[in-house]
Amino acid sequence: MGLNYAKRMDNIKASEIRELLKLTQQPEIISFAGGLPAPELFPVKQMAEVSKQVLEEVGSSALQYGPTEGYGPFREQIVKRMKKGQIETSKENILVTSGSQQGLDLTGMIFLNPGDVVLCESPSYLGALNAFKAYQPKFKEVSTDDDGMVMEDLEKILEETENVKFVYVIPDFQNPSGRTWSIERRKKLVELANKYNIAIIEDNPYGELRFEGEIPPAVKHYDTEGRVAYLGTFSKTFAPGMRLGWICAEGEFLQKYIFVKQGTDLQTSTVSQMQLAKYLEKYDLDEHIEKIKVVYKKRRDLMLNTMKSEFPEGVKFTYPEGGLFTWVILPEHINAKDLAKLAIEKKVAFVPGGSFFPNGGNENTLRLNYSNMDEERIVLGIKRLAECIKEML
Amino acid sequence: MGLNYAKRMDNIKASEIRELLKLTQQPEIISFAGGLPAPELFPVKQMAEVSKQVLEEVGSSALQYGPTEGYGPFREQIVKRMKKGQIETSKENILVTSGSQQGLDLTGMIFLNPGDVVLCESPSYLGALNAFKAYQPKFKEVSTDDDGMVMEDLEKILEETENVKFVYVIPDFQNPSGRTWSIERRKKLVELANKYNIAIIEDNPYGELRFEGEIPPAVKHYDTEGRVAYLGTFSKTFAPGMRLGWICAEGEFLQKYIFVKQGTDLQTSTVSQMQLAKYLEKYDLDEHIEKIKVVYKKRRDLMLNTMKSEFPEGVKFTYPEGGLFTWVILPEHINAKDLAKLAIEKKVAFVPGGSFFPNGGNENTLRLNYSNMDEERIVLGIKRLAECIKEML
Repeated sequence: MGLNYAKRMDNIKASEIRELLKLTQQPEIISFAGGLPAPELFPVKQMAEVSKQVLEEVGSSALQYGPTEGYGPFREQIVKRMKKGQIETSKENILVTSGSQQGLDLTGMIFLNPGDVVLCESPSYLGALNAFKAYQPKFKEVSTDDDGMVMEDLEKILEETENVKFVYVIPDFQNPSGRTWSIERRKKLVELANKYNIAIIEDNPYGELRFEGEIPPAVKHYDTEGRVAYLGTFSKTFAPGMRLGWICAEGEFLQKYIFVKQGTDLQTSTVSQMQLAKYLEKYDLDEHIEKIKVVYKKRRDLMLNTMKSEFPEGVKFTYPEGGLFTWVILPEHINAKDLAKLAIEKKVAFVPGGSFFPNGGNENTLRLNYSNMDEERIVLGIKRLAECIKEML
Repeated sequence: MGLNYAKRMDNIKASEIRELLKLTQQPEIISFAGGLPAPELFPVKQMAEVSKQVLEEVGSSALQYGPTEGYGPFREQIVKRMKKGQIETSKENILVTSGSQQGLDLTGMIFLNPGDVVLCESPSYLGALNAFKAYQPKFKEVSTDDDGMVMEDLEKILEETENVKFVYVIPDFQNPSGRTWSIERRKKLVELANKYNIAIIEDNPYGELRFEGEIPPAVKHYDTEGRVAYLGTFSKTFAPGMRLGWICAEGEFLQKYIFVKQGTDLQTSTVSQMQLAKYLEKYDLDEHIEKIKVVYKKRRDLMLNTMKSEFPEGVKFTYPEGGLFTWVILPEHINAKDLAKLAIEKKVAFVPGGSFFPNGGNENTLRLNYSNMDEERIVLGIKRLAECIKEML
């Protein structure tokens, strides 16, 4: 027998990252592959305490069904965090999601008919591309430079292209490139979205992990017409295992998200929302983030310095001011997938860059994560990787 | 401005149940509307304890990303529970989901092209119909009687209908009817699915809440070709606020579910899975279920007895041997939506039955839940409802 699956399933394969992650669970592997936060920094003790407290104090509501929109006091805490990106909002505009990944899936669901066009940065986050693929869109990649998406290229594509539904962007410490958009580009993006009547999906998992300089206003800050949906998450600032994220949007736009969220999982865990809300009430998340930043900055510096001294000439990489990733461009004749095979033999893992380009190409690129390995392993891993690159020159 | 949403959004509206539930959060309302378990029975103390324990003992893995498939020891606990329905399986065949509602959404995603046909019981679970609607299928309702789906009707539809992808069934204490399928019908369903090469989606949230008689073998027990996906959940036997359910299927079939789960939310909460796994290790869930059953049985008896003595002649209802619901058929000229308006004025809520029929009609039906109200409120609520019905005769 062969069951008869939907057409969309032809496009859906296991994510290369997730498959790599399985491999990298072997403890001897030095992994720069995932986007995993450093587990030794999780506020385990405080969570143990508040978890117990919530169950003891309001256990029967914590374990019961709750509204699809999310737990009120948790949404109020989220509103406070939105101020970091200079977004003034209220809890009516917040929908709690099961990680920001769910926000991406729901975005595909509310916007995309088969053949509709999604615009994204080139390169863009693999997990978002995979979420959208379930809705059978076409992708148009917009070129990027050190200041973010190139607005001239975006406008040209918007002029020429039918059925564009939204532009998906990660303006802060972009995944995979590590780059941050300039303020001018943020303003211009909203201007163009208004002109061409498309939505903007602003994904910002890393913005608060800024090691130097000031957090710029979010794209959502410049939204005058309620066409920006902002996706946030506690995965990188707190812990990903809780699966708590959110969507901030207004009116009918948010209502569409709420409707589809109902069908997909009714609501996000009541007890998890209550526990994290309690943590946010009792403790200072900003203080916790400061601790994370100290460690990640050190790891970034160490990784970039080791790359500078060890990588052969002709290998370029980005200088992220925060977040989790740096992006490497190899000489054109080196295929990063082949490099990955070589590297895994030497117990080093990373994600080849090709899969971050929905329309293919750019096989000479790769993404490195610096948040999840200790300093010794970072130096050792980069040295081994440098050897592998030299072997392939 | 008006953003340009996907065509599917034309079919997606707020669930009547969820909207009603909002209303019923007012404490003075006697609500027979939701499918809410009794919160006073949740094992709050034990959960407080194991929550703390998991975080203290393995906090940094509990708060980290984990595999899409789910946490290994939790999946092993699920395998044990599957034996209740005489299903012998292994953890490789289990995917942990965010409630069984997510299993329904993922089912739509892997099977349905717009216009494909879903077969379901008439009536069927509103939340499942809503989840499937996002994938724009046609529904064909198969008639039911006290023994479940009528197999002659199913075969006739299968013979006549193109593009049937799956049949969705709730064989144990069906939602909304409260009825349970006979063993003969279960066997015959598998036989017909084999013959016509369709999948079976067996949804079983209530099967373990059986007040009398033996749990029959699941439909999945009779599956010889790996075409039954069994959806389970801890929402009714433990607590819904955790959002923990599962899919049991094999090989390529389960793999499809895993692929789409990755895109929709990466994985279900690691910490919730570890906490419930710890509870299942340390405590006896069966013992807990015995306690729930005593209370629900009493409430069912009281509701049915009060209905028998108070409801006017010409009103019929089902006698569920377990689960949460009874199903009421009013005289044909009474519209349950009008009755609901009248009842809500008297502070009694229920779900009108029309929305359980995807192709409409049957407006003289309604669903009553007996698990969530105490005995005093059950009697009072049914008496008031009886008055409302009499008013409309």
